[in-house]
Amino acid sequence: MATLSGKFLALSGGVGGAKLVRGLAECLPPSQLQVVVNTADDFDYWGLRICPDLDSNLYALADLNDEQRGWGLRDESWVTLEAMRRLDDGQWFQLGDRDLATHLYRTQALAAGQSLTDVTRQLGERLGCPAALLPMTEQRVATRVFTDMGELAFQEYFVRERCEPRVEKVVFDGLDTAQLNPAIISALADPALRGIIICPSNPFLSVDPILSLPGCREALMQVNVPVVAISPIVSGAAVKGPAAKMMHELDIPRRAAAVAEYYCDLLDGFIIDSADAQQCDDIAQTGVACRAVPSMMTTLDSKRRLAEETLSLIEELV
Amino acid sequence: MATLSGKFLALSGGVGGAKLVRGLAECLPPSQLQVVVNTADDFDYWGLRICPDLDSNLYALADLNDEQRGWGLRDESWVTLEAMRRLDDGQWFQLGDRDLATHLYRTQALAAGQSLTDVTRQLGERLGCPAALLPMTEQRVATRVFTDMGELAFQEYFVRERCEPRVEKVVFDGLDTAQLNPAIISALADPALRGIIICPSNPFLSVDPILSLPGCREALMQVNVPVVAISPIVSGAAVKGPAAKMMHELDIPRRAAAVAEYYCDLLDGFIIDSADAQQCDDIAQTGVACRAVPSMMTTLDSKRRLAEETLSLIEELV
Repeated sequence: MATLSGKFLALSGGVGGAKLVRGLAECLPPSQLQVVVNTADDFDYWGLRICPDLDSNLYALADLNDEQRGWGLRDESWVTLEAMRRLDDGQWFQLGDRDLATHLYRTQALAAGQSLTDVTRQLGERLGCPAALLPMTEQRVATRVFTDMGELAFQEYFVRERCEPRVEKVVFDGLDTAQLNPAIISALADPALRGIIICPSNPFLSVDPILSLPGCREALMQVNVPVVAISPIVSGAAVKGPAAKMMHELDIPRRAAAVAEYYCDLLDGFIIDSADAQQCDDIAQTGVACRAVPSMMTTLDSKRRLAEETLSLIEELV
Repeated sequence: MATLSGKFLALSGGVGGAKLVRGLAECLPPSQLQVVVNTADDFDYWGLRICPDLDSNLYALADLNDEQRGWGLRDESWVTLEAMRRLDDGQWFQLGDRDLATHLYRTQALAAGQSLTDVTRQLGERLGCPAALLPMTEQRVATRVFTDMGELAFQEYFVRERCEPRVEKVVFDGLDTAQLNPAIISALADPALRGIIICPSNPFLSVDPILSLPGCREALMQVNVPVVAISPIVSGAAVKGPAAKMMHELDIPRRAAAVAEYYCDLLDGFIIDSADAQQCDDIAQTGVACRAVPSMMTTLDSKRRLAEETLSLIEELV
C-alpha cells in the first residue's frame, strides 16, 4: 500500500476497536494517527480510576495486550487481587499486578491535578504507544444500563453480570455537561485531517458516548473529510461483546446494515464483512459507500489488512 | 509461666517493637493485649496511605512477616513495583504486591470516611491478628527529620537516604493538635489494666511521637500500674535502625541506661540486655527497677522469653 499523507482520527471503544487501531498504527506513523477513546466506561475500583477503553487501546498499541485472554496485559499476575480477596471477598473486577501500575499512576497524577489527556499521553510515552490516545472528554461520564434486573453501572452490567441482564435503556450520566476534549476539536480543525474512522466498537455503549458529547456529531459532520465506519456485527452476531444481544433487546435488526442506519447521516463509507456482502446494496441505497471485506481481526496481519481497506475506502471518498 | 490476669498495653514502633509484641501475644490471649502503635511515620506513596509501623505489628502478629528480609510480608512479589518503574523511574520505596492490598484496602476505607482505628481492626480480623492494634491518633502526624542535608520527611530519611544524614532535630508536624486515640484513653481507664510496656523501639522516632501526644505522658503516669520499658540499645549499638547513631548525633551517651534516663520519671522498670548488666546499678539508683536478661529476639522462642521476663517484672512491680 502506498504511503498515505495526512492525518486520521479514529473513534474507538475497548478491545474490538483497539484491534483496528493496532492495524491502523501498522499502516500510519504516530504523527498521522490520533484515537478518540470512549471514557463513559470509566469507574473507580479499589479507590483507583480505571479507564478500561483507554487501557485496551494503550496496551494493544504498545503490543502489551493479552490476545489469548482477550483483555488486559500479557504475562500478568494476580497477587494483589488474591490478597485483596483475603481482605474483602466481594471482589468482582479483576485487576492484575502489572495493570495495577497503570491505575495507580493515573489516579495519583489525576489527584495531583493533571488532566486525563496529559496522563494518557505520559502512559503512552512510557509504554511505547505509537499513536496519540485522546480521552473523549476531561469530565466524568458514567454509563448507566437500565435492565430487567434494575439500573446497573456499566462495569456491573459488563463484568459482574456478564451482560446477561436484558437491556432496556442506556444513559450516560454527566454527558450533557461534559465537553469534547479540546485536543479533539484541534484534531478536527487540523487542515491535514484526511479521514475519520469509527472502529468496530459497540455502537450503543462505546461509540454513542463519544458521538453524544455536546457538539461532537455536528463537529464530525462539518469537517470536510470522509467518515468511514466498520461494522462490529458479522453474520448477525457481534464479533465480541453484547452488541448483537443489545440490538435484539432494543428492537434493532441484528444486521450490519442496521449499524450503518444507526450512524445514519454521519457516514460516507461503511465496511462490512464479506459474509454480509449481500447487504451492500441496501447500504449503498442510503448514499453510503459500502465495501465488503474479510473483517475478522484474529492476527496482526488481518488487523493491518482491514486497516488498509479502511484507509483505501477513505482515499476513494476524498 | 503462670497465666496472667488483667490487661496489658504495649507501646510499639515498627519491626523492633513488633518482635516483642509478637512475644507478648504468645503469652497473652487477644483479650488481654492491646498495642498502641506509632503513626508519625505514616505517609502517602502512589496515592496510598502507608502506615509502616501499624503494618509491621500487624504482619508480625499475624505471622505473615518476612523475618529474613526484616520487613514486609513473606512470599512477597514485586510485579507492580517493576511496572511502576517503567512508568516512573524515581521509585525509592518498595511496595510488594501482597502488601499493596493492605494499602489499597486502607486508603479506600479511609476515603469512605472510616477511622484508622476501625480499618486497622478490620485488617487485623481479616489477617488473623491476635491482639488489638490501636493507632496512636486518628489525626495525621508527620515526622520531619532535620539533618545536615536539610529537612527530610521520615521515610525519605529512613528509606531513601538509609538513615545516613546526620540528625540535628526531629519534629512531629501536627502533633500539637492531634488527639490521643480515644480507644487508648479507654484502655488506660480500664480497671483491668495491669501494666504498660514500652517496646524496644527507637525512643526518638517511634516512642516519642506517642508519648508527646497532648496528655499522653500525663495519662500514662496517672494510671496506677507499672510502666516497663525494654532497651533497644545493646552493648552501645541499636539492635536495629538508627537509634544509636542518632543518640551519638544528639549528644546522648550510647548506653541502655541513657534510654532509661530519656524516659525518665515515666518508668517503674527497665529491662536491659545481659551484656549491659553492669548498668543496672546506675539505673536502679534513679529508682527504676532494672532487670538484665538475654534480649536478642532472633527466634519466636526468644521473643516469648523476653515477653515473659517483661510480664514477670511487671508482676513484681504491681
